[in-house]
Amino acid sequence: MKLLEERIQQDGRVLGDDVLKVDNFLNHQVDPQLMAQLGHEFAELFRAEKIDKVLTVESSGIAPAVFAALDLDVPMVFARKKKSLTLSADNYTADVFSFTKQETNHIIVDKRFLNAGERVLLIDDFLANGQAVQGMMEIVEAADAELVGAGIVIEKTFQKGRALLDEAGIHVESLARIAAFEDGQVVFAD
Amino acid sequence: MKLLEERIQQDGRVLGDDVLKVDNFLNHQVDPQLMAQLGHEFAELFRAEKIDKVLTVESSGIAPAVFAALDLDVPMVFARKKKSLTLSADNYTADVFSFTKQETNHIIVDKRFLNAGERVLLIDDFLANGQAVQGMMEIVEAADAELVGAGIVIEKTFQKGRALLDEAGIHVESLARIAAFEDGQVVFAD
Repeated sequence: MKLLEERIQQDGRVLGDDVLKVDNFLNHQVDPQLMAQLGHEFAELFRAEKIDKVLTVESSGIAPAVFAALDLDVPMVFARKKKSLTLSADNYTADVFSFTKQETNHIIVDKRFLNAGERVLLIDDFLANGQAVQGMMEIVEAADAELVGAGIVIEKTFQKGRALLDEAGIHVESLARIAAFEDGQVVFAD
Repeated sequence: MKLLEERIQQDGRVLGDDVLKVDNFLNHQVDPQLMAQLGHEFAELFRAEKIDKVLTVESSGIAPAVFAALDLDVPMVFARKKKSLTLSADNYTADVFSFTKQETNHIIVDKRFLNAGERVLLIDDFLANGQAVQGMMEIVEAADAELVGAGIVIEKTFQKGRALLDEAGIHVESLARIAAFEDGQVVFAD
């Protein structure tokens, strides 16, 4: 998505070898016009999949996910992140390891909000090592729902997340695909 | 807002004397059409205030806040919640005590995203004891920005938050005002 790539070039900050900060338009300060455009793009890319529900993880996924859900006219559910976990029969849970923070969080979805047979679209802001998406996949599976796609705002193609999703046979659409960071600049994949 | 009151009557669950669960349309599963309508209503109520920025706290405030910001055509910033805090010259921080969880969290906003003189609209999902809004007020003040209003999705008029904001002279607009819970039912204020 040309518009997003231009925005990343203009406003993204590359830190070190593998970190891209986009906190001025995506995950701390948020550009609502851009979010509406990302949501619309996701909806167009996945409309044929007959989505019943959009699933994301708090907090950075919420803005793009809610606009995708608006455009698809379906509910959006955001999984809650918790450091500690009180097991409950009412919730689906999965572990998510953060390479950035070197810690494990748990993600939680109330069983009332994911039903057997529902066609679920995952949305997330970043795809790097794929841990958050993998956690959401486990939850969708536990609910006997059907994962029909994953919409990613920014994919880092040089980390292992994409391969993991491809191996699982999931239809992935990333709106910007980053091949490398070179001299503090973003190099997009073709 | 009639539409919201009807939705609360239909889908809200009253637990005990003072808890209203709206996790099936507002703060876990989210109805994007409703969020767009709430955002539009906030924008109409505050348009005359010449808002420069919408400020909320992750996670439940993000969906209504991003739609209000879209309609007002300004950026939205969501404060991050942290249990522990590494003090940094780069951030504004405030403490927020949660009566529900009986614990103190910290909220954090990067200094780059709140500027002196900016006219700020706070948005939050609930106003009960007003701790989250008070934390955001401290951050706005630390930034030398100007707090021009607070838009609340659901206000519990019988808790002390509203009085706190009125005393501070803040223009508050709540889309649903709950006067009491009686026999498990919601009683709205006039």
